[in-house]
Amino acid sequence: MKLSVIQFETLYKNKENNLKKINGYISEINSNILVFPELATSGYFYTDKNELRKIADNYESETIKKIQKLSTELEKIIILGFPELDNDKIYNSAAVLIPNPKLSRVYRKTHLFYKERFVFEEGNTGFFVIDYNGLKLGTMICYDWRFPEAARSLALKGADLIVCPSNLVTGVWQNVMSARALENKVYIAVSNKIGKESDSNQELEFNGESAIYSYNGSVISKASCNSEEVITSTIDPEKTRDKSFNQINNIFLDRRPEYYK
Amino acid sequence: MKLSVIQFETLYKNKENNLKKINGYISEINSNILVFPELATSGYFYTDKNELRKIADNYESETIKKIQKLSTELEKIIILGFPELDNDKIYNSAAVLIPNPKLSRVYRKTHLFYKERFVFEEGNTGFFVIDYNGLKLGTMICYDWRFPEAARSLALKGADLIVCPSNLVTGVWQNVMSARALENKVYIAVSNKIGKESDSNQELEFNGESAIYSYNGSVISKASCNSEEVITSTIDPEKTRDKSFNQINNIFLDRRPEYYK
Repeated sequence: MKLSVIQFETLYKNKENNLKKINGYISEINSNILVFPELATSGYFYTDKNELRKIADNYESETIKKIQKLSTELEKIIILGFPELDNDKIYNSAAVLIPNPKLSRVYRKTHLFYKERFVFEEGNTGFFVIDYNGLKLGTMICYDWRFPEAARSLALKGADLIVCPSNLVTGVWQNVMSARALENKVYIAVSNKIGKESDSNQELEFNGESAIYSYNGSVISKASCNSEEVITSTIDPEKTRDKSFNQINNIFLDRRPEYYK
Repeated sequence: MKLSVIQFETLYKNKENNLKKINGYISEINSNILVFPELATSGYFYTDKNELRKIADNYESETIKKIQKLSTELEKIIILGFPELDNDKIYNSAAVLIPNPKLSRVYRKTHLFYKERFVFEEGNTGFFVIDYNGLKLGTMICYDWRFPEAARSLALKGADLIVCPSNLVTGVWQNVMSARALENKVYIAVSNKIGKESDSNQELEFNGESAIYSYNGSVISKASCNSEEVITSTIDPEKTRDKSFNQINNIFLDRRPEYYK
């Protein structure tokens, strides 16, 4: 099963061009799973909800329907970060689009980072796993990485692969993401963006280094910190399912939830 | 507040000499907190419960009382791994000895590794925090590292510092321990042993690299992989208590337990 992570420079407030790039990558990359960054249609740094609303899409919108159509026609799983408009509310969401559209769902970011709190609602979908064609797929977004409970919840629900569309501005996540893979024995795919964005007070620099982690915590593919690129790995989801790592220990069966506060 | 980790080669089945070394370190090291390895009185690799019983101590034994006396007299917190005999049961325990003996407690390892299951009972004390003289101290033992819930439970109960007496034989814990410090904003002190032990089928090599981690995940002191040594750091427990890392985000207040399975 081929997994690709697309690291690119999302153009701020330029949905048309972002979608053009996204469509291009979807057509060109010959992989089963394509992971795009967080807020890939819009860019990241919005602090004015009215500005953000103009570029947000409902999950039932034509924007998402067109990507779903590509997913179905090309038989590719597509994970795409976008600002999701639901009546008056906006969520920092990822469309998890499955070739069988009945299985597609939207994930709304559970843990909001920094000024996202000015414009987004806290996600209310929780963590879920989609079972399709031999893959159990879990999704989290960016700052969710910091909470061990996020990846743990997905792994306990059976995820083989956790995808993590991101717009990361530090490097502290890298070691921790490796820990998430090891402690849960799952693959992890982080799609980060590159480039800079500013509000009136502050410039953010997104630092790439998108990566695919194997279930032992090792990095199996990694992008640069500053160029637009696609990284691809072959994964074997079934290998994550036996949580033993020697003849006696099994990281799930060894858990003792009665002692976890 | 000075924290020392004692990395040493425990002598297998030689309690008398191990205690002599332990007593020596307690007298010599001028620190507030001393962390010894897991099973420091006995050595590690027992697969015969009768053999282990001979060297195990009750928590109320003279062996532990003498160390408690040193703790009180020298005003040092001492964390010491030992095989704990409680009627017919043996636990892989750590005596957490506080200069005020009323606060002292025993921690029984929650998650048993590998052949420990042949001789030890699963711990039944759970994770607890002791509040003494400006420090909130949590204890876990070795393989507990692999379960994010262990350090998380201690941090949620208020731990500033998590000590982790260990007998580690791989290096995979090192990145993860850094993640545990960062994701919980706590200090972590890992006391590992060095040297080799065998049963009839297998040799284990304990690989040192005992370390003290700051609450941002960085290593502030680290021992070698193969020599007996003491590492010491100054820690400031209060710095771990504000779980904010920018003006908006706080890693504890941002948690959303309703979505954690």
